[in-house]
Amino acid sequence: MKQATIIGSGLVGSLWAIYLSKAGYKVRIVERRSDMRKEKISAGKSINLATSYRGWKALDEMEIGNEIRKIAIPMYGRTMHDLSGNKTYQPYGINNQAIFSVSRGEINCKLMDIAEQKGNAEISFNEECIGADLKNGIVHLKNTQTGKISEIRSDVVFGTDGAFSAIRYNAMQKLDRFNYSQNYIEDGYREILLPANPDGSYKLDKNTLHIWPRGRFMLIALPNFDGSFTCTLFMPHEGHEYCFNNLTSKDKVEKFFKEVFPNFFEMMPNIADAWEDHPLSSLAIIRCFPWTHGKTALMGDAAHATVPFFGQGMNAGFEDCSVMYSLMKKHNEDWEKVFKEYELLRKPNGDAVQDLSLLNYIVMRDKVADPAFQLQQKVERRIAELYPGTYFPMYSMVSFSDIEYQVALKQGKEQDELIQGIIKKNNINNETNNEIIDEIIHNFFKEKK
Amino acid sequence: MKQATIIGSGLVGSLWAIYLSKAGYKVRIVERRSDMRKEKISAGKSINLATSYRGWKALDEMEIGNEIRKIAIPMYGRTMHDLSGNKTYQPYGINNQAIFSVSRGEINCKLMDIAEQKGNAEISFNEECIGADLKNGIVHLKNTQTGKISEIRSDVVFGTDGAFSAIRYNAMQKLDRFNYSQNYIEDGYREILLPANPDGSYKLDKNTLHIWPRGRFMLIALPNFDGSFTCTLFMPHEGHEYCFNNLTSKDKVEKFFKEVFPNFFEMMPNIADAWEDHPLSSLAIIRCFPWTHGKTALMGDAAHATVPFFGQGMNAGFEDCSVMYSLMKKHNEDWEKVFKEYELLRKPNGDAVQDLSLLNYIVMRDKVADPAFQLQQKVERRIAELYPGTYFPMYSMVSFSDIEYQVALKQGKEQDELIQGIIKKNNINNETNNEIIDEIIHNFFKEKK
Repeated sequence: MKQATIIGSGLVGSLWAIYLSKAGYKVRIVERRSDMRKEKISAGKSINLATSYRGWKALDEMEIGNEIRKIAIPMYGRTMHDLSGNKTYQPYGINNQAIFSVSRGEINCKLMDIAEQKGNAEISFNEECIGADLKNGIVHLKNTQTGKISEIRSDVVFGTDGAFSAIRYNAMQKLDRFNYSQNYIEDGYREILLPANPDGSYKLDKNTLHIWPRGRFMLIALPNFDGSFTCTLFMPHEGHEYCFNNLTSKDKVEKFFKEVFPNFFEMMPNIADAWEDHPLSSLAIIRCFPWTHGKTALMGDAAHATVPFFGQGMNAGFEDCSVMYSLMKKHNEDWEKVFKEYELLRKPNGDAVQDLSLLNYIVMRDKVADPAFQLQQKVERRIAELYPGTYFPMYSMVSFSDIEYQVALKQGKEQDELIQGIIKKNNINNETNNEIIDEIIHNFFKEKK
Repeated sequence: MKQATIIGSGLVGSLWAIYLSKAGYKVRIVERRSDMRKEKISAGKSINLATSYRGWKALDEMEIGNEIRKIAIPMYGRTMHDLSGNKTYQPYGINNQAIFSVSRGEINCKLMDIAEQKGNAEISFNEECIGADLKNGIVHLKNTQTGKISEIRSDVVFGTDGAFSAIRYNAMQKLDRFNYSQNYIEDGYREILLPANPDGSYKLDKNTLHIWPRGRFMLIALPNFDGSFTCTLFMPHEGHEYCFNNLTSKDKVEKFFKEVFPNFFEMMPNIADAWEDHPLSSLAIIRCFPWTHGKTALMGDAAHATVPFFGQGMNAGFEDCSVMYSLMKKHNEDWEKVFKEYELLRKPNGDAVQDLSLLNYIVMRDKVADPAFQLQQKVERRIAELYPGTYFPMYSMVSFSDIEYQVALKQGKEQDELIQGIIKKNNINNETNNEIIDEIIHNFFKEKK
């Protein structure tokens, strides 16, 4: 039987094991950590992800989308909270399109279960990849508990071990002409759990992604099933008036939240006590090339880790699986051809998803609060409604389609300029009524023909 | 006694040991390789470097410049060889300014000797750095011959172990928020030894750097003391008409040299036989930050490895020593302050020397053969002669001064535009006589006042 080794039982590794099982492979997953399913995940440790079109497409391709939908909460738009507690709502798409909040831990456990139970995969925990013969498909392991050294030989090896991939660091990075960069952005993040009301109800609308945009920093909240929200504060580490390095005492934390997130502080007056529940973490963009060598390929974050602002990290990794699977079929499992085409196809999209993520940070923390941007969004949404199938906003291309990321980035930028031009030329402002806007849009498309 | 550890006994490590000895430190250098002084360096393995102002300044500061001058051959300009064997000469500076060809092996051996004999340094060979506690100045070593593990604790640690620095890879790169990139350029290189004539004389003028510029690739030659030249062919690895991947047989190598370097081929008709004497090597730009952590600092290539086209790798590393030494004195060996200022001062210059190196590749392989560029150089040199102390060409700022690299880069670009403007405005061409050019220059500087 054909054998495959996967390094890392995270989201992409577990899903890819399901794909490979379907293709008739016996899969061995090796995971450095212990089995997260056997550990109690404290609610406070949850991290939330947003599953969007590309993620669902890959899950549905393996006929497991519906199982994951059971643990997913739709968010139909973003709700912005200003300093006075006023809310503004922007739908993400048209016709109730949504992105879905899922707990990273929950979806990961489910995918591991499916890989083991319905797939043909076996997961070995506490096995650290300490090196590899990439060309010949040999992985060197060290058991983190017993210290035992072992190796696995298989027909094909996949590194899905995340942003700080051990197989990339211990083997790929030593290859001649392997390009690599890890660039940390100026900002870090800290998670905060906003608990449910005593009766278990949500403190905020649960079907929306909440943002407290504050220009250079922001707080966001995604819903959990138990009535709580997982919130994340993104902010510079240092060198700014508001930065993590300045929040060194409970007093300062409390003052900070009172001052810049007053309506959040009202919901969670004990924020300063919960401040240390989660560590302060850093955010990096990791780029490398090539992604494959001999019998080995990198997928997901191991190949193209990004910052979380477009919610596309998991989705891009799941899409890697879709693409790799279609190439497997196209090239009849001639892995040399599969890998060559995979990396040439996906690398520009990995780069693009990183650029998109950085762009969207500025949108989320700053632009969403800007009336000019809100107007632009309104006009753009109306165009998309009036000309569906003809016009897709950048956010929709990224989140509600599988248009290549590189195309979404390029077209999105062009469309931005187009809409700004329409607004300027026709003197559209926030008072312009909808009928006039519709007329301007129709005229524009008539002229275009 | 104050103790310092240096990782790597290369050029920068050995020189820095001399500096630290002078400052009263007992220095332990650990080197992964064996003692190169005990091995016969075959002439065919020599690599040549060009020592320029910054290098001499650091050597003279330690009063060892004259010793190194004994093994250095001045090159006063570049001689370009075209396809027909015609030569064009461009002086590097004014008043016989020169850069100096030295053998990497020879200068390194000399510096190690001086560090051990006149300095207070001890070199331990075959000791590989397998990790470090950067904060506390502890270096973990493994002897490459006995396998013995050991550690050294000292007051301060310096990583001078080159482009693929082990201390950077095994310790720095694991730090949170350490930015790092290794980017290989499209081109590789292969060295070729052009032997002396049977009577020991040089086959080419020895006091010039020879270039065979061919647009997308080039061959260069630097003189050795024994009458030979160390030549280097820089060329794309693949994907071009002329690239290393296309030179796969002796026939092809011979045909290539006959066709594109005919006068070189005449001097060395056995080139195809010597082709495999040296390996094909790759070229990378390595950037990182921070350069220091706790008690540890990176210097030279370990911090800012560049491509060799401006001949500034060693010079920039030696300048790191000058700067670090002046900061040691300024801050009275308060290493925390020294390191902070060192990395903030030097990082922009490390970046600039990398940009300059990449720019100069295009100059050397392509622009030097372009009549428009030659005219520009001629006008620029005349300006420098007429207004010495007022106007420094970029090449002179980099090679004949210690003006910061970042300033040289910025001013050099501005000056390029300035001179192109003067040439265009006054319709200067290759026929314009020198008196008219002088008049135009004088008028320009009069107007400027």
